[in-house]
Amino acid sequence: MTIAKLFEEIKRKKSFLCVGLDVDLDRIPESFKNNQDPIFDFCKSIIDATAHYCVAYKPNIAFFEAYGVKGWQALEKTINYLNENYPEQFTIADAKRADIGNTAKRYAKAYFEHFNFDSITVAPYMGRDSVEPFMEYEEKYTILLALTSNRGASDFQLNSNGDKLLYEQVIDTSKQWNNFEQLMYVVGATKATALSQIRKSIPNNFLLVPGVGAQGGSLAEVAQHGMNDQCGLLVNSSRGILYASSDEKHAESAAKAAKKLQQEMSILLRKNGLV
Amino acid sequence: MTIAKLFEEIKRKKSFLCVGLDVDLDRIPESFKNNQDPIFDFCKSIIDATAHYCVAYKPNIAFFEAYGVKGWQALEKTINYLNENYPEQFTIADAKRADIGNTAKRYAKAYFEHFNFDSITVAPYMGRDSVEPFMEYEEKYTILLALTSNRGASDFQLNSNGDKLLYEQVIDTSKQWNNFEQLMYVVGATKATALSQIRKSIPNNFLLVPGVGAQGGSLAEVAQHGMNDQCGLLVNSSRGILYASSDEKHAESAAKAAKKLQQEMSILLRKNGLV
Repeated sequence: MTIAKLFEEIKRKKSFLCVGLDVDLDRIPESFKNNQDPIFDFCKSIIDATAHYCVAYKPNIAFFEAYGVKGWQALEKTINYLNENYPEQFTIADAKRADIGNTAKRYAKAYFEHFNFDSITVAPYMGRDSVEPFMEYEEKYTILLALTSNRGASDFQLNSNGDKLLYEQVIDTSKQWNNFEQLMYVVGATKATALSQIRKSIPNNFLLVPGVGAQGGSLAEVAQHGMNDQCGLLVNSSRGILYASSDEKHAESAAKAAKKLQQEMSILLRKNGLV
Repeated sequence: MTIAKLFEEIKRKKSFLCVGLDVDLDRIPESFKNNQDPIFDFCKSIIDATAHYCVAYKPNIAFFEAYGVKGWQALEKTINYLNENYPEQFTIADAKRADIGNTAKRYAKAYFEHFNFDSITVAPYMGRDSVEPFMEYEEKYTILLALTSNRGASDFQLNSNGDKLLYEQVIDTSKQWNNFEQLMYVVGATKATALSQIRKSIPNNFLLVPGVGAQGGSLAEVAQHGMNDQCGLLVNSSRGILYASSDEKHAESAAKAAKKLQQEMSILLRKNGLV
């Protein structure tokens, strides 16, 4: 998918919502638990209920991997279901991968060729040659961790070299990499004030923003500091949508939670003159 | 497995060799290519040929993941084969995972519970709460990326805050984490001179050292700078053993390559009075 197409979808749906698929078998409705593939069936029910309100889905790979081969079968079915039934949705493998070049190539092959995701989250610690193999794919996007939403973000990401913080160095350095325009960045919603500075440094790249909802970030602040003329934001919500209720009306509740976020986003897009 | 048991194995085999399982279907012998599960069959042949000369195996998860569900089936068979037939081998999931706490817990569950690996490699960028969920497991080890062997290591790992380089800060900070004694560290063999300093900072923790062989690191230098009184080193070789030859004698060639490294290691262990 191209950025232009993603922006079209954002305008069409008046939404920059990404639904995170973090399927916890302990939290899904009882009615799914005896199914042959409860992970996929739950994902499918959430996707069908929310697709109208969002522009992206983000399977959290750990939650599939935790179940071994069965989890991978569910992941394969989920991404295939998305690509076949909702090809307009931007798909994100939330995998936080990265390794030396010949290994990174394999991860890129897994997510971009085998599964055919549109994008993957990648960790920057190992530097340029651990990320560029992902960036070689046309119309695929590499979403680099910059400033994350968790408490541990302050352990290293906020380290200063006297001039810049580590996450700022990550962003600055990555601007020199091949196909930089195919980078997006993870910036936690809990750090909304840092967004202005980040937006100045990378005016055009999309930001994937976790941390609205369960982690306490504010959607309005994120839009205020991070929106650009193509929206430039994908705001993720996982638990707030997936587990809006855990009874037989879970899909309806998920749709309602997604719709509520979409409506807030619609107002913010209008405020910025984008719809 | 405990560190004491690992050290016993090192003394018994006079080896601190780790064999990396980076299975590239384009490089395995022709005879495997029509098998139903060529990845597992190749891994098995390498394990059976080299187990006498090494104390650890390190499946590189990307090389399995690249083949989707089939790759995961091969990974499951490989770790089960190791645990059933070579329980004395220390197993390392080379996965470079890490994410926010509730997600890191899932990765820990995947590798320590579902697959029952002894250890996993983990990236430090997201800080304490992204690593500690792995460290909660008794007799399991978390191998934190410190100074890697690739070119991109210099992009961020060598950043100075005026006092310390980033990888030194990673090591120093991690010393404050719960169950610190269950940490090991990745330190590339191509940075052997940095090993002395690292060894001073963490005298007791094991170091996983890639980069000997294909990447140009020297085994003697690694031992000189990094060995402690429990050896404290696992030196990895992947391509140099797996693809020592690609004909029908590949297993014999792999055994020969592993034996050569084991013999060098035996001399170095003796030199340090450990055997």
